[in-house]
Amino acid sequence: MEKLTLPLLLISLLCAQPSIAQDEAPADDWKSASSNQAGKEYPKVNSEGRVIFRIEAPEAQSVGVSFRDSNAFTKGEDGAWYGITRPLDEGFHYYTIMIDGSDVPDPNSMMYFGAMRWGSAVELPAHDQDFYTVKAVPHGQLREIYFHSESTDSERRAFVYTPPGYDQNPDQRYPVLYLQHGWGENEYGWGAQGCADVIMDNLIADGTTRPFIIVMTYGMTNEIRFGGLREFKVEPFETVLVKELIPYIDTHFRTLADQPNRAMAGLSMGGMETKQITLRNLDTFSHIGLFSGGSLSPDDLSDLEAFKAKNKLVFVSYGSREVEDGTRRGGDPEAATEALKAAGINSHYYVSPNTAHEWQSWRRSLRQLAPLLFTN
Amino acid sequence: MEKLTLPLLLISLLCAQPSIAQDEAPADDWKSASSNQAGKEYPKVNSEGRVIFRIEAPEAQSVGVSFRDSNAFTKGEDGAWYGITRPLDEGFHYYTIMIDGSDVPDPNSMMYFGAMRWGSAVELPAHDQDFYTVKAVPHGQLREIYFHSESTDSERRAFVYTPPGYDQNPDQRYPVLYLQHGWGENEYGWGAQGCADVIMDNLIADGTTRPFIIVMTYGMTNEIRFGGLREFKVEPFETVLVKELIPYIDTHFRTLADQPNRAMAGLSMGGMETKQITLRNLDTFSHIGLFSGGSLSPDDLSDLEAFKAKNKLVFVSYGSREVEDGTRRGGDPEAATEALKAAGINSHYYVSPNTAHEWQSWRRSLRQLAPLLFTN
Repeated sequence: MEKLTLPLLLISLLCAQPSIAQDEAPADDWKSASSNQAGKEYPKVNSEGRVIFRIEAPEAQSVGVSFRDSNAFTKGEDGAWYGITRPLDEGFHYYTIMIDGSDVPDPNSMMYFGAMRWGSAVELPAHDQDFYTVKAVPHGQLREIYFHSESTDSERRAFVYTPPGYDQNPDQRYPVLYLQHGWGENEYGWGAQGCADVIMDNLIADGTTRPFIIVMTYGMTNEIRFGGLREFKVEPFETVLVKELIPYIDTHFRTLADQPNRAMAGLSMGGMETKQITLRNLDTFSHIGLFSGGSLSPDDLSDLEAFKAKNKLVFVSYGSREVEDGTRRGGDPEAATEALKAAGINSHYYVSPNTAHEWQSWRRSLRQLAPLLFTN
Repeated sequence: MEKLTLPLLLISLLCAQPSIAQDEAPADDWKSASSNQAGKEYPKVNSEGRVIFRIEAPEAQSVGVSFRDSNAFTKGEDGAWYGITRPLDEGFHYYTIMIDGSDVPDPNSMMYFGAMRWGSAVELPAHDQDFYTVKAVPHGQLREIYFHSESTDSERRAFVYTPPGYDQNPDQRYPVLYLQHGWGENEYGWGAQGCADVIMDNLIADGTTRPFIIVMTYGMTNEIRFGGLREFKVEPFETVLVKELIPYIDTHFRTLADQPNRAMAGLSMGGMETKQITLRNLDTFSHIGLFSGGSLSPDDLSDLEAFKAKNKLVFVSYGSREVEDGTRRGGDPEAATEALKAAGINSHYYVSPNTAHEWQSWRRSLRQLAPLLFTN
């Protein structure tokens, strides 16, 4: 791999780019992103949260990246194209490279499913990344399974996290969290960019979370897997989840197969699904988690006392940049949480610091939710 | 998605392309490839094994694909670039798109790891594809696990296929096949493009194969995961496999943890690894499978009688296009198999029809090998 003199290269880039003034030179502590493909030096990230990309496109007229406000790419001394972003939030961000008007994945990045495609993303180091870092602790397993769905006439994929010790303790049974992705994402998200298995291994190792099973499946039933969110109807997925997947899990895994030991949570669209499905199935789910996906207030409940008798937990979270003006479409989630609490419901509200509608908010939300589950 | 009048488009493509004469017009029975991302119409494949690609790159000067002898891409009536390949073998092929000299993944393709990168591939229908098609049969699980490796001071990933019924039959123990990928590939290959889990589910469902566990891990120990094959030394991986992974599997899964119930097989480099490691560890492995990765003759055995006393099966396979001239570097695999058989060893040779050094040969090899394992 070719070695570049990075400071020299950057100066030449900066000279060509009026949008970064000389006195705003990026911090020169670039490190290869952890989301790179093995052996790839670029993209690199620095301590300000900037990302520098390197694309080999010798005959291209223009190269760019989908991060808004990012500098146009310029050719470096080695003939490759370089571009630097503005400082980004800690955590995980999808992106696309543009070569002469063509949107393509960055060949240097690992591939993740989001924004309705397998494509590129970059991982920015975070001050709290320890909780989703693979460590030498007992590990659970992330299992890819297929279950038969009568209602959709298909063999459907799900991922099942089983906690450490699952196979060694054949007499133990476990509660289950059904955990949903967002719109334009799929059943791979929580196990890949969501780090759900790693987060759980670490939480269980430090003794703060009770071992439980997590089940992640695709939250839509349209086979082409995209389309407008506005036309989306949750009922076909509700059938798959409640009538087909839950019975499959309860017969194929050692679950505690009753309402007190079954939770549902989801991010964004998955939160909206969680709210609709759990409220219609109070005898199936006792714990509810909404991550950047709406809130729950006493006004949502047709029968507050019935809900109170059956529900054990409501957890609502957002990224701080989503709630900076104090409100969200559909109301103030913090006020809704307080109102639920005043009504006697075990209700929790969490705001992820300095993050937006993005995976870092949702990793942190899972970390906050997990210790609260199945404890009462 | 824009609808194209395909015959018209093709005629305009053909006119511009002297390498396909008018009387060799491709068969007009194009279907979207099964390896496409959800909702993507292109690439399409036809009954001749040709592939047509469609790339949106409005400002590009040139677009191409890495299949040799393929026609240069030309702009279609809709402004996108189109290119058609020569007829390809049935099965699975890696490729790369070139846009103005930049090698990038096709944004329409699912992403697979091979040729040392996550990138594009296309699946051609095959006359025998039923054996690796997901069907409504009892399904096993493909489990992602991490195991601690002292020798490399790392938490290492493996995938473990457990057969249908594994969780429902807690008193049953299973034999284990350790199954390796090729050079430039990784531990994802057999579960993704290799379809190992689907092949096993189907073979077990039709009663021809005994249920067993398959373990797949990364077959090198260089963290950057590439480098010259010539400098490759198998010993560090042998330590990981024999001293670390096997003990982990035998304590974390319900294995039959003895030599008669342990097999190793691999493709290409994985076959070379299998040969070296099994011959040095006759007390660990009883069954040996080499797929496009060398052969085994009596000359390879320092002590034929000792081998005969311990080995239960030798299986060697190639794609027919690899052995068309009757020989392979390192000798004639069929003659070697016959010589082993004459020496009293349970030895099998298989040639995959009309395939080369590619996954279709290896899927078929697994299908042939599996029913022979752990039967005596």
